Amino acid sequence: MAKSTQLIDNEVFRAYATYAAIVLVKMMLMSFITAYFRITRKAFANPEDTASFGKGDSAKKFLRTDADVERVRRGHLNDLENIVPFFGIGLLYALCGPDLSTALLHFRIFAGARILHTFAYLIPLPQPSRGLSWAVGYAVTISMAYKVLSKALYL
Amino acid sequence: MAKSTQLIDNEVFRAYATYAAIVLVKMMLMSFITAYFRITRKAFANPEDTASFGKGDSAKKFLRTDADVERVRRGHLNDLENIVPFFGIGLLYALCGPDLSTALLHFRIFAGARILHTFAYLIPLPQPSRGLSWAVGYAVTISMAYKVLSKALYL
Amino acid sequence: MAKSTQLIDNEVFRAYATYAAIVLVKMMLMSFITAYFRITRKAFANPEDTASFGKGDSAKKFLRTDADVERVRRGHLNDLENIVPFFGIGLLYALCGPDLSTALLHFRIFAGARILHTFAYLIPLPQPSRGLSWAVGYAVTISMAYKVLSKALYL
Repeated sequence: MAKSTQLIDNEVFRAYATYAAIVLVKMMLMSFITAYFRITRKAFANPEDTASFGKGDSAKKFLRTDADVERVRRGHLNDLENIVPFFGIGLLYALCGPDLSTALLHFRIFAGARILHTFAYLIPLPQPSRGLSWAVGYAVTISMAYKVLSKALYL
Repeated sequence: MAKSTQLIDNEVFRAYATYAAIVLVKMMLMSFITAYFRITRKAFANPEDTASFGKGDSAKKFLRTDADVERVRRGHLNDLENIVPFFGIGLLYALCGPDLSTALLHFRIFAGARILHTFAYLIPLPQPSRGLSWAVGYAVTISMAYKVLSKALYL
Repeated sequence: MAKSTQLIDNEVFRAYATYAAIVLVKMMLMSFITAYFRITRKAFANPEDTASFGKGDSAKKFLRTDADVERVRRGHLNDLENIVPFFGIGLLYALCGPDLSTALLHFRIFAGARILHTFAYLIPLPQPSRGLSWAVGYAVTISMAYKVLSKALYL
């Protein structure tokens, strides 16, 4: 078990593991918020989910879309589109041996931007709050990808 | 090539690699099931996909949504929302040096829960089958995230 | 920092890092293309995004779906469904110590197939261009999963 324990003893990798876990858990919270809105707004996607509301037409009317549910789902999909590349490119970046301070700067800005993005999407805050927080997280990931490609390039 | 070979010789990492590959392949199977339903139900999303059914209105009527296709697609998206965090958090967890038996317990329960979730979604089984299998997989991932954050925390 | 630097010195891992970064960045580009079409087609999903077009009904008419926007979004989702499993299974595969030439073959074909897939989806090219490029990338990922499971299997 020596090897894997040593990787997690590396400070850059520990920082990566911390921030990656935080943003992945944040992304998972979107499932909870979707479920919360589906139940409180009574807006479901599957007939079997409405069975407890009775049968036939009385249950069918809950098979509908709701503006708040759709908003959370868009936020969740946006997380998948942005946090998953951060996880992947960030892992490669952490293994490229960057300076600890530079790496921490990338990870902290990304995590902060995505948390802000979630609030901007769900409250919602007026634009360009959501757009800017998305762009900051995107730029951080591209910056890490540049480092990975310049360090590891092997085509 | 020594280093990478050694990581895969670690038993916890081998267990992780096995279950991660299984659930990722399971997720990929959803693409096949979607394609199967799109073809058998003749329900497509892109005009170029219906070109073989003729031209004009005779082909246009196949550009439609179908309840079965949409069900598989919801299941696929749910896999992305849950299996991807498992892959990421599970990787960090496997590198944190957990006990082999504890790690195996996490991986086996997760894989079992997600396979059950797929059957519960596609058959579909009455609730709360799908809800419970989702919750079990979710709890396993959160448990691993807790271990990662308590072992690696570096803010 | 010794351990992680050594992993990135492994040629197979460097090749993996290169192609994984390329396809993840390619996936991220889909967000830009979506934003481009949303702005040029004036088709938005959130009321706060249309605020600059005025208030009330004059802005509400831009809350609509557009065929080009939806096409890019389907391509983006297809990337998530295929590039994310490639990233995960490819990482495990790279750690299994495959031959460099075999690994390069897998990575290059996958990256080429997904870039072709994007062009086939967005132009769009007549079928089966998109179907075939999807299938090639899928087969490469399954081939790597087979290698991972046969090398690392620990149930």
